[in-house]
Amino acid sequence: MKKTKVALLGAGFITDIHFESYHRFIPEAEVVAVYARNADKAKAFAQKHNIPQWYDDLDKIINESGCEVVDICLPNFLHAKAALSAAKAGKHVIIEKPIALTLEEADEMIAACKKANVKLMYAEELCFAPKYERVRSMVKQGAVGQLYMLKQGEKHSGPHSDWFYDKDQAGGGVLMDMGCHAIAWFRWMLNNAKAVSVYATMATVFHKGRTVCEDNSVVIVEFENGVTAVAENSWAKHGGMDDRCEVYGTGGVVYADLFMGNAAVSYSREGYDYAMEKADTTVGWSFTIYEEVFNQGYPHELKHFIECIQQDKQPLVTGEDGRAVLEIIYAAYASAAAGKKIMLPFEPKVSKPIDLWLGTNQ
Amino acid sequence: MKKTKVALLGAGFITDIHFESYHRFIPEAEVVAVYARNADKAKAFAQKHNIPQWYDDLDKIINESGCEVVDICLPNFLHAKAALSAAKAGKHVIIEKPIALTLEEADEMIAACKKANVKLMYAEELCFAPKYERVRSMVKQGAVGQLYMLKQGEKHSGPHSDWFYDKDQAGGGVLMDMGCHAIAWFRWMLNNAKAVSVYATMATVFHKGRTVCEDNSVVIVEFENGVTAVAENSWAKHGGMDDRCEVYGTGGVVYADLFMGNAAVSYSREGYDYAMEKADTTVGWSFTIYEEVFNQGYPHELKHFIECIQQDKQPLVTGEDGRAVLEIIYAAYASAAAGKKIMLPFEPKVSKPIDLWLGTNQ
Amino acid sequence: MKKTKVALLGAGFITDIHFESYHRFIPEAEVVAVYARNADKAKAFAQKHNIPQWYDDLDKIINESGCEVVDICLPNFLHAKAALSAAKAGKHVIIEKPIALTLEEADEMIAACKKANVKLMYAEELCFAPKYERVRSMVKQGAVGQLYMLKQGEKHSGPHSDWFYDKDQAGGGVLMDMGCHAIAWFRWMLNNAKAVSVYATMATVFHKGRTVCEDNSVVIVEFENGVTAVAENSWAKHGGMDDRCEVYGTGGVVYADLFMGNAAVSYSREGYDYAMEKADTTVGWSFTIYEEVFNQGYPHELKHFIECIQQDKQPLVTGEDGRAVLEIIYAAYASAAAGKKIMLPFEPKVSKPIDLWLGTNQ
Amino acid sequence: MKKTKVALLGAGFITDIHFESYHRFIPEAEVVAVYARNADKAKAFAQKHNIPQWYDDLDKIINESGCEVVDICLPNFLHAKAALSAAKAGKHVIIEKPIALTLEEADEMIAACKKANVKLMYAEELCFAPKYERVRSMVKQGAVGQLYMLKQGEKHSGPHSDWFYDKDQAGGGVLMDMGCHAIAWFRWMLNNAKAVSVYATMATVFHKGRTVCEDNSVVIVEFENGVTAVAENSWAKHGGMDDRCEVYGTGGVVYADLFMGNAAVSYSREGYDYAMEKADTTVGWSFTIYEEVFNQGYPHELKHFIECIQQDKQPLVTGEDGRAVLEIIYAAYASAAAGKKIMLPFEPKVSKPIDLWLGTNQ
Repeated sequence: MKKTKVALLGAGFITDIHFESYHRFIPEAEVVAVYARNADKAKAFAQKHNIPQWYDDLDKIINESGCEVVDICLPNFLHAKAALSAAKAGKHVIIEKPIALTLEEADEMIAACKKANVKLMYAEELCFAPKYERVRSMVKQGAVGQLYMLKQGEKHSGPHSDWFYDKDQAGGGVLMDMGCHAIAWFRWMLNNAKAVSVYATMATVFHKGRTVCEDNSVVIVEFENGVTAVAENSWAKHGGMDDRCEVYGTGGVVYADLFMGNAAVSYSREGYDYAMEKADTTVGWSFTIYEEVFNQGYPHELKHFIECIQQDKQPLVTGEDGRAVLEIIYAAYASAAAGKKIMLPFEPKVSKPIDLWLGTNQ
Repeated sequence: MKKTKVALLGAGFITDIHFESYHRFIPEAEVVAVYARNADKAKAFAQKHNIPQWYDDLDKIINESGCEVVDICLPNFLHAKAALSAAKAGKHVIIEKPIALTLEEADEMIAACKKANVKLMYAEELCFAPKYERVRSMVKQGAVGQLYMLKQGEKHSGPHSDWFYDKDQAGGGVLMDMGCHAIAWFRWMLNNAKAVSVYATMATVFHKGRTVCEDNSVVIVEFENGVTAVAENSWAKHGGMDDRCEVYGTGGVVYADLFMGNAAVSYSREGYDYAMEKADTTVGWSFTIYEEVFNQGYPHELKHFIECIQQDKQPLVTGEDGRAVLEIIYAAYASAAAGKKIMLPFEPKVSKPIDLWLGTNQ
Repeated sequence: MKKTKVALLGAGFITDIHFESYHRFIPEAEVVAVYARNADKAKAFAQKHNIPQWYDDLDKIINESGCEVVDICLPNFLHAKAALSAAKAGKHVIIEKPIALTLEEADEMIAACKKANVKLMYAEELCFAPKYERVRSMVKQGAVGQLYMLKQGEKHSGPHSDWFYDKDQAGGGVLMDMGCHAIAWFRWMLNNAKAVSVYATMATVFHKGRTVCEDNSVVIVEFENGVTAVAENSWAKHGGMDDRCEVYGTGGVVYADLFMGNAAVSYSREGYDYAMEKADTTVGWSFTIYEEVFNQGYPHELKHFIECIQQDKQPLVTGEDGRAVLEIIYAAYASAAAGKKIMLPFEPKVSKPIDLWLGTNQ
Repeated sequence: MKKTKVALLGAGFITDIHFESYHRFIPEAEVVAVYARNADKAKAFAQKHNIPQWYDDLDKIINESGCEVVDICLPNFLHAKAALSAAKAGKHVIIEKPIALTLEEADEMIAACKKANVKLMYAEELCFAPKYERVRSMVKQGAVGQLYMLKQGEKHSGPHSDWFYDKDQAGGGVLMDMGCHAIAWFRWMLNNAKAVSVYATMATVFHKGRTVCEDNSVVIVEFENGVTAVAENSWAKHGGMDDRCEVYGTGGVVYADLFMGNAAVSYSREGYDYAMEKADTTVGWSFTIYEEVFNQGYPHELKHFIECIQQDKQPLVTGEDGRAVLEIIYAAYASAAAGKKIMLPFEPKVSKPIDLWLGTNQ
């Protein structure tokens, strides 16, 4: 078996997770290079993980590292540029959420990959998280009868990197960062049923000094099949990561919780190394997670993409899916501004989604 | 200590709960009579509970039973009539949710009790449920910093009595039946802060053959203090009662669950008498609740009202609170019809709340 | 209704709990006096709770306070003396666990109460804790088929009062303090089936500097009906009180948890007043209990005793039950010393149970 | 990378789990052949999993299949024979629990593998289960201070295969089948500290018609470092698999639950494919497990052994560990017969462990 060569773009939190996934779970791939805008960061990441090459030049890593796959873990505003460069160079693209800042960028990325005949996967790990996949599989069998409501939320106390809080780099707040997960997962659970309308309420409740972006949001998406889906997302929730779903059908219900619902329950007077993502402390009671990367589905997701490449298959989650998520995010920001549900399709021209809520003067 | 004499109006599920509360927990009161429209039902209830008098005539029980308190557990459309009769007769009134079918009825009830100088309490047991009260007390102390979001939901598979499904008797579906709890509790947690806007989505997903009323709803209430509150209610959720709240603040979070979160966890091959309200079966795994009436706060609520009477105090939850809840319910139905948030105050003239969603032609 | 007059002996932690139970839940009784060996403590307790009389003379409170019931919440070594004085004075006796330091004392107490024709109740609140009683009731119905194993444990990080750690005042460590609960509850669940044998292992693992008594123990009791029962008790378990039972039968299983299993789950950056008994902190994650006294069954237990007096009934848990528990505790200490199971009956002459483990030279 | 060739001995429940582990998680290995005593079973297993060779002759699969590793998943009484044949043929051996029926067999197996210079691993998956390993790692850091008590239990309603219930094939009941896990895990958590004494109680409570072996047991192991460990095991516990541990230290506590504590919580009116090992039904409430094989540590365990072979390292869990577990099981049976703790070392000559409890006349 020839190993598929991967170039990692980015050297932050999520890139670590991708690296661990390839390294521990995907022998069919090898990470050959890493890129960061900051050379020191790139070099340090490469050394830490024993990656042979590092770059601080985007075009060079794409064109000169010998990679077949470009795995984009960069800040949102760099997604389109990186994907277009990769496509141009004939490299397969897997891209972290959200797909891009604008629908036009997304369209361009999709078209470029198509034209270059390279695969484009939208990396939504919740579509691969094993507990959620267990839920999906039982629901498909009719375990809960006919679906009528879905809920999913991700909440923690806010990202560590500064760019998340900058509306121009991120394009929005918690909705861009974590709301995209819920929306992608709703569509995945519903076989990509069409979203009909979107309602959202949002506010900046905790990080007011740091950002104008929303750090708490509730989004209601209505689908053509009559299912109502509720996404709750927050950067203002303390005590560690919360990632839960609830599935309601006419014949039953399923609750799944990826963090507290998997954790060992611990009390420590002295504390210990690590409880879970974004947990502030390990002193006192904590919920101690294990195999955090595996349980969120990253290895399954990336392995799937490598298989798609090696076996020339279509990824299960595509650029079109990423675009559909982004359109719903657009509608959510517009809804929060208008105080009414926004009907889809909804494709206003904007330079970033949050402008639809804040206006363009901010 | 002289016992305060109570007449129970109604002989159904909730009346049983009120009776148990008085009988086991409130020695300061005694139930002297029960009324039901159906004489057999009234008589059977009186015999079962050893109540000295039963009536099938509303005016008679109020005027001739010797009661000081009229405790109204009747179907919604009879609330106003019963309360007005009681006030006219100079009896104190405690009334189950929702206060009435219309705001005009509510106004009339409040005015009549005021004029008659009798106390009127809106019986929202969640304001007295001991676990929720523990949550409220810690939140008041600042345990979670400044509140920014509240969630509460009640869900089960639907009431047993037919009148709940009849829009003319009930005035609406699950929102009238259970959404009122969430809304009252939000206001209670927020010291009766003013609600500013209401958004709702609702549908009939499970009981389509039985009712035109909504059996699943999500309602978002925005308050003047910036708190967002989300009420989820369902008559389509199987496996027994679900009653949970989540409280989010800038300094923490609290989750409380009144049913599964209090239950013994049981597996039984043969089954047993009872697991919890609306549980379909006790075979296999079940969540076995205990002191169900106490844990929902009914004894605390009714004891408080008896104390208000004996010590001439103002009830903590009043007719005005019930009216405010009803106004939010109006707005929710109107919002679901309009697809946009409804600003408060909102006082359209209708004959029942659900007309604002269904229209008056249905 | 004439209120039954109660004198409280003791002014510590458990006496507060008894007072709250009478005051909030048992209108049929009134606390007329409190006794403590230390006059200041007695006076402070009386003032705090608005109790009309306080005493620092045991005979006086019994004979001069006008009480009908003596409720003994004193350190273990004073149990017999207080009970005998009460019986002699013709007062009904309810006594906190353990019944006494020795079987001879227990026999004398039982005989004295019998002779004086006063009631003697052994105050085992787990026999009245509503969640455990729900478990018992479903088990009686056959929910789990035929019982084959019971488990129960109470664990926390150790009592606050010094006398618990003094082998002469307490007669033993955690087994005397908390193991007695498990043992009494096993007998209660089994309709007072005869215990056949006892095995125990114990050690001093955490409070070595403070006591020679055991602070961790596991006791296995085999009953004549073939049921095996396992009691786990600890004064070395951090993070608050743990009180759980598990019931195993050939047709199912029930798990009940009185503290974490009832609690609201909270995360607080600043902390708040109180989470649960023996919780060290409320900062970070905590399990917030509510109606702690009610949920442990104290009001139900004491109300039952008052009813027994007013209606001249036999208490459900008697001095004989307390004695049977003590005999099993004797056997447990002897077993821990001998490394083998001790067959019952087992009635060695000792001045306190722990001598059977430590020997009399310590 | 050359793949290490594995021959699977056995074609039952556990062999399926081993196959899934190799297939999904261990690209460094390939299963080249399967053996069962029954040719049809061997053939069916091979076809189901697309394994190139199948055998019903033990010597042939070992000597002719081209395997480098013999993975023994046979009934207990065949363990020694298979391991000795494998060693003789110069094949590495990994063996499912328990190591053998007798200490003499274990000694012979260890010696044979040593002499043949092949690796022998005792396949205790709990030493690799990721949640338990997370617990171990935090405990090693001092998260709970100094350990004083460990608990672990596995319980379900009994194996499906008949041989488990036959004392001559299995050597004992639930203690041989599942108690071995707890005992191995205690030693693992304690860095193979020496066990000093063993006490056990056991009975046949549910499968009386099918076996004379014990189907419920409690075993207490005392270690030289003062830690007390309690193993609870049952074949009489309904509702699916239970696999939990509790770790108590002077500075804290950890609770981990591999099944209910990881599961999605589901209610289904119609049921669905599968909830967890040994769950009787999926109708009603169920606890739906995911990645069951991964979460029990099988892939990690087998991957470790393949690495040991490829990198010539000593397995972390050895034949000596398996022997030490068996010695403790001997002592447990003897203790249950004698009603006293048995001191180690304890090496009586018997033909199977359960004889020490039943006597040799049964």
